[in-house]
Amino acid sequence: MKPLFAKPLSVLNVGVSSFGDAIAQCGAPVTQLDWVPPAGGDRQVAEALARLLNEPMVEAANAKAVDRYLAAQPRLSTVGIAGEVLPRMDRRMILHAGPPIDWARMCGPMRGAIVGAILYEGWADSPQRAQALAAGGEIAFEPCHHHAAVGPMAGIISPSMPVWVVTNPAHGNSAYSNLNEGLGKVLRFGANSAEVLTRLKWMEKTLAPTLRAGLEALGEIDLKPLMAQALHMGDEVHNRNAAASSLLIKKLVPALLKSGAPAGDVAPVIEFIAGNDHFFLNISMAACKAMLDAAHGVAGSSLVTVMARNGVEFGIRVSGLGDRWFTTPAPVVEGLYFPGYTTKDAAPDLGDSAITETAGVGGFAMAAAPAIVKFVGGSAQDAIANTLAMTHITLRRNAAFTLPALDFAGTPAGIDARRVVDSGILPVINTGVAHREPGVGQIGAGVTRAPLACFTQAVAALATALQG
Amino acid sequence: MKPLFAKPLSVLNVGVSSFGDAIAQCGAPVTQLDWVPPAGGDRQVAEALARLLNEPMVEAANAKAVDRYLAAQPRLSTVGIAGEVLPRMDRRMILHAGPPIDWARMCGPMRGAIVGAILYEGWADSPQRAQALAAGGEIAFEPCHHHAAVGPMAGIISPSMPVWVVTNPAHGNSAYSNLNEGLGKVLRFGANSAEVLTRLKWMEKTLAPTLRAGLEALGEIDLKPLMAQALHMGDEVHNRNAAASSLLIKKLVPALLKSGAPAGDVAPVIEFIAGNDHFFLNISMAACKAMLDAAHGVAGSSLVTVMARNGVEFGIRVSGLGDRWFTTPAPVVEGLYFPGYTTKDAAPDLGDSAITETAGVGGFAMAAAPAIVKFVGGSAQDAIANTLAMTHITLRRNAAFTLPALDFAGTPAGIDARRVVDSGILPVINTGVAHREPGVGQIGAGVTRAPLACFTQAVAALATALQG
Repeated sequence: MKPLFAKPLSVLNVGVSSFGDAIAQCGAPVTQLDWVPPAGGDRQVAEALARLLNEPMVEAANAKAVDRYLAAQPRLSTVGIAGEVLPRMDRRMILHAGPPIDWARMCGPMRGAIVGAILYEGWADSPQRAQALAAGGEIAFEPCHHHAAVGPMAGIISPSMPVWVVTNPAHGNSAYSNLNEGLGKVLRFGANSAEVLTRLKWMEKTLAPTLRAGLEALGEIDLKPLMAQALHMGDEVHNRNAAASSLLIKKLVPALLKSGAPAGDVAPVIEFIAGNDHFFLNISMAACKAMLDAAHGVAGSSLVTVMARNGVEFGIRVSGLGDRWFTTPAPVVEGLYFPGYTTKDAAPDLGDSAITETAGVGGFAMAAAPAIVKFVGGSAQDAIANTLAMTHITLRRNAAFTLPALDFAGTPAGIDARRVVDSGILPVINTGVAHREPGVGQIGAGVTRAPLACFTQAVAALATALQG
Repeated sequence: MKPLFAKPLSVLNVGVSSFGDAIAQCGAPVTQLDWVPPAGGDRQVAEALARLLNEPMVEAANAKAVDRYLAAQPRLSTVGIAGEVLPRMDRRMILHAGPPIDWARMCGPMRGAIVGAILYEGWADSPQRAQALAAGGEIAFEPCHHHAAVGPMAGIISPSMPVWVVTNPAHGNSAYSNLNEGLGKVLRFGANSAEVLTRLKWMEKTLAPTLRAGLEALGEIDLKPLMAQALHMGDEVHNRNAAASSLLIKKLVPALLKSGAPAGDVAPVIEFIAGNDHFFLNISMAACKAMLDAAHGVAGSSLVTVMARNGVEFGIRVSGLGDRWFTTPAPVVEGLYFPGYTTKDAAPDLGDSAITETAGVGGFAMAAAPAIVKFVGGSAQDAIANTLAMTHITLRRNAAFTLPALDFAGTPAGIDARRVVDSGILPVINTGVAHREPGVGQIGAGVTRAPLACFTQAVAALATALQG
């Protein structure tokens, strides 16, 4: 030891920083290496992880899965009616965001939205009767994700609701999402007043057929180039969709005017779309779902294909682990709250919109959208740092989605559950915050993280699956 | 000297770098300070500059001028007809870009555009007769800038052409620009075929009245917030106007549909606007002109209020120097040329569009639009560096135009002719390049610099004016 201390010391401290602090106080230069034990220190999971890392079978499966994700060409095809176009959609079924959950355990906004959907469907004629019906077990509640669908916040889709139909000819799959209602009193935050139901009926009777006619006149819209363009215009196509919505309008409007749809319908439809900077969000989500469903179901793959929240639990699905969900309690978002609200008022993390992060946009593409971090109290540098951090837990860069601020490098794409557990770096998610009571609406926004527990479960399960 | 060389040396080398190189080769650390003599080494101008720098009268005049620029609130008011709304516009007058120039000295694209304008006005019935008329001295040619107007490239405005009317109630002035024709064969690049003239007539007879009806239904559009939003969406509102054009469409389209304009006109008008990502450029230019005209005419001010090119000469005007132009030969743009073209094919720098840089956007806001530098072969870092460099020659930051990549710092605003001459840092301009022959069109794009000679002349003139 003695000769070591005779020379000037230059110390690299790994892990717990207090060891380094002591040396720094004595005047020696210390470089702190951020490091935490893999799997949060869980020995069993760490052993499972060790079996999966650099395992050729997993590497090959991941390459296959991520290639399918990258090769996807989601196209906005048409607007359908959920009960007619969604796979396995029953007549008395309501879809919701996130992993499976019973009525009894649902959060306030989701219950409010379900009551709204029952009234909208005409299955009950008062909120009380709707609630009784929902609690009575006659209506089947299933995740949107079980039907190739996604919905923001409560994510409620009932049979009569119109849905975007996004096809992915590259893989032969389709994905679906409901249509965005705008801001204020809306079903997705649990509001179910007459105003909300009237709007939903108008969306079914006027908006949907008009959009369908417009898309028929226009032909399918290739969504990846449109999203790529929006990423060059300050959107991350999750919490900011101002550019994408504008680009969509620019394509749709001339087509709507030529579509033969009644002029009396076209004008209010255009006004509705033009008044909602989030109109593209649901399309972005369906596009991401289409890209990720193509990558799902590759045996041995640790690629994460779903991250979703139901306001009670956060759940993920992994390509090589079939229909299983890996869930843990949903965190409350530590974000920026609107005046008068705090985390106490917030429903835990909610919505299928984290499908955007799963697909490498949203929080993963935050470098494209510095205005997002400003909205939640950060800087342009934070935005870039968030995107760069995600490269440690992803399998590739998506050359179709480039980031101007990073000299047009691709977005980090394809979350590897192994790398999340190994590094302790958690997927970043840009999200809105809903009030815990139905119908109050959005009370904040923030940057949150997917919880580690989902990924450790998935890694353990994958290791078991590969042994069996 | 000896004790100096006994210690380790740390050298700061100012100016010519070869002195420092010698020291660096001997192993001592050298910091190179980029410095060039002011006024390009011209002793007389440097003395004039010395009299103006920190001169209280100039400082006060600049504060007043730049305050007027910052206080401007340009609003898109209506579409008028040039001959009816432009101040001092005669019946047989054609306006052009840049400083004054005779027919005999005009560049190819400008001549081609003037021939087109004469045919469009019906003053001649063949290109040959139009050319003879133009050469014959019967038509007055004056800069757009003499009529509170601006036009991109050749910048031709003849009496029957529709013009955007932008008002600035904060100062009580108005500014004007022609309407953007789109890309391809267009008058502003000197094309004058039947196709070009037919489009110009359609713009006069259909586009202009329809837009006028739409603006009437909508009310005036506040342009600064719209431009600010576009700067957050990857535009610098000179060479990139994709976001601003989209935002304009989003406002205009619902109004057009409600305006009572004939449905048969509205559809093609919307299609025309939606098909042109540069549609907003001319509005951006008129807004910049309105902001800068408000700042013009403050005695003693060295604020640059015009930078403009006629394809032969580059000219500037300065707030405290009235109607005088300070000109020098226009440079050929060293940019990225389309395949098959080189600088030999290029017309020298052309157009009034440098009004955007004069107003602190365009090249000055390049940090907002990294896609622009990519287009001309640079990086996102180059974009930021360009914007930062401009802070050395400007008087303020414009808090209305913020730059996400610089953590929402304002754009550098208000070029001070003194600082340009003192630092040798030349205003950066994003520009398209026109073919030297009329009608060929755009052959490239690039980042160019305003020539120093304009600024040295202006500084000398201002020093003389203040002495007198």
